[in-house]
Amino acid sequence: MLVADIDTPAMLIDAAALDENIATMAEALPGARLRPHVKAHKCTGLARRQAAAGHRGFTCATIRECEGMVAAGLGEDLLLANEVLDARRLGNLVAAGARVTLAVDSAETIDAAVAGGVPEVVIDVNVGLPRCGCSPQDAGRLADLARGHGLSVRGVMGYEGHVVGLPDATERAEQCKIAMEMLVAAHADVGGELVSAGGTGTYALNTWANEIQAGSYALMDTAYGCLGLPFRQSAFVLATVVSRSDGWAVGNAGLKAFGMDHGNPELTDGTVLFCSDEHVTFMPPRSVGELAWLVPAHIDPTMALHERVYLFSGDTVVDVWPIDLRGW
Amino acid sequence: MLVADIDTPAMLIDAAALDENIATMAEALPGARLRPHVKAHKCTGLARRQAAAGHRGFTCATIRECEGMVAAGLGEDLLLANEVLDARRLGNLVAAGARVTLAVDSAETIDAAVAGGVPEVVIDVNVGLPRCGCSPQDAGRLADLARGHGLSVRGVMGYEGHVVGLPDATERAEQCKIAMEMLVAAHADVGGELVSAGGTGTYALNTWANEIQAGSYALMDTAYGCLGLPFRQSAFVLATVVSRSDGWAVGNAGLKAFGMDHGNPELTDGTVLFCSDEHVTFMPPRSVGELAWLVPAHIDPTMALHERVYLFSGDTVVDVWPIDLRGW
Repeated sequence: MLVADIDTPAMLIDAAALDENIATMAEALPGARLRPHVKAHKCTGLARRQAAAGHRGFTCATIRECEGMVAAGLGEDLLLANEVLDARRLGNLVAAGARVTLAVDSAETIDAAVAGGVPEVVIDVNVGLPRCGCSPQDAGRLADLARGHGLSVRGVMGYEGHVVGLPDATERAEQCKIAMEMLVAAHADVGGELVSAGGTGTYALNTWANEIQAGSYALMDTAYGCLGLPFRQSAFVLATVVSRSDGWAVGNAGLKAFGMDHGNPELTDGTVLFCSDEHVTFMPPRSVGELAWLVPAHIDPTMALHERVYLFSGDTVVDVWPIDLRGW
Repeated sequence: MLVADIDTPAMLIDAAALDENIATMAEALPGARLRPHVKAHKCTGLARRQAAAGHRGFTCATIRECEGMVAAGLGEDLLLANEVLDARRLGNLVAAGARVTLAVDSAETIDAAVAGGVPEVVIDVNVGLPRCGCSPQDAGRLADLARGHGLSVRGVMGYEGHVVGLPDATERAEQCKIAMEMLVAAHADVGGELVSAGGTGTYALNTWANEIQAGSYALMDTAYGCLGLPFRQSAFVLATVVSRSDGWAVGNAGLKAFGMDHGNPELTDGTVLFCSDEHVTFMPPRSVGELAWLVPAHIDPTMALHERVYLFSGDTVVDVWPIDLRGW
């Protein structure tokens, strides 16, 4: 199958760029030093490539992602880096032989792990992003509480999500240090082998965590593309021009094909004016039937909108992967 | 099943509000005066309610939407209000007995209708939104071209998408008039029974079109909620608080549960600070396990992210509809 024969709109991955990104990361953070985050791609086909590069543990954001990874035979060591109040579906995975470690940050989430039959947890520590996680000072108490309930506490996690996208690398490094010193302090109180943190923006700076939860590096997006990282864009949304006017052309990919929280996608060879539900209007105009290659502003929610992704090399489709970890 | 037993995040519809919205619209635009746009909900269960209210023709934005509507027995008169370059899947629907009318705005899209076996078209006219559609002056020529190729030209369509969201009702009415006078002029050159246009923001103002393509009115969102229309919010994303801190709480619905092109969702009883992939951080804090009801900023891409929608009355789930028109 040729790229030109793909029904558009469609999600595509440049196979060579993907392989290069995975290899670059595996060299920087080999084996267990990286726990790739599957929320960035939601695709077990891609996770399998990451596993082949030596990363056997994965990070998930949803129960469905854990279930899909186990179903794909990739459930050797999954960290659900998120709080849940009903862990029974995770307990089913554990009962079936998978290893699932759950983030907890409260008595309620510890109770959920116990009730759901998930024996291993990490203490989720807030390191500056106003989201989940206990205060660093409270981590030791929660670890004791968890152990008192019979749980095994594998360590701490703390995502410096307020840092990973900072455009200035020096500031990113400084803020990463501040965040990770909080996590290291919490770890001293908690114990366990895991200090899990980081993302694509801090993978090379974060020397405090012993495993990095990066995900976007494999596919990239315009947000991470600004940071001067050694990863190149591998994911694109392919659109076909369906209408042409004097000043613009319209491609058949819109708000239902792109995560829009970071703004419009970028056209590789033109300027996007705006997106509608099923359209992208861009300049300069080009002929009806021509293709338009668009780079998502934020890869994670973009992947969540597509059923499958076409892996291509040159003008040829070399594989089609279902985006099989969508939903909850 | 109770609302409290729904796995979150989840898409919910208040059954009474939905019925009310559908009834209000059916009274204003009875029967064929409304051609409900299914892109706003992507759900044949909901379309069936619209059909029961008397609307037998529907507007679609994608081929998949047409296919799903036909499969649901709602293919009596579908208008694909969008240009396509490969109409063969639509031709299959026509061959199977459905009525599908396709928008065309160029020689290429006319050729696609012919090649695909779609015998009926409308001429899509640009009435001011920089997107698809021919110039009003070119509509007659395209209609002649289409007829010359053996197609039946049912009339014109022209979406005043640049007008439907204008906050000032007077300006909306004035701009609607300007746009529709272009469409009426084009119709004079094209002929045919259809003058199709309009949306939820102009349904009551647009007296030039003889059918209105409104969709959002059934579910509504914060963008249309500002316009003083006689429709109330019926769609919500339900989240569960999974983490609580001193200044905020975190619900388990984020960028993968909301179309974000119009900004953050609104919390019915609090303030959203920001969304992450699977989280919404909001104030004031509330306890872990409590529910949070969120109103999407833009309903169309929000529905496209969910597999199903729960119809509820009070605290009880009365139906579950698959959101079965997603994808392409």
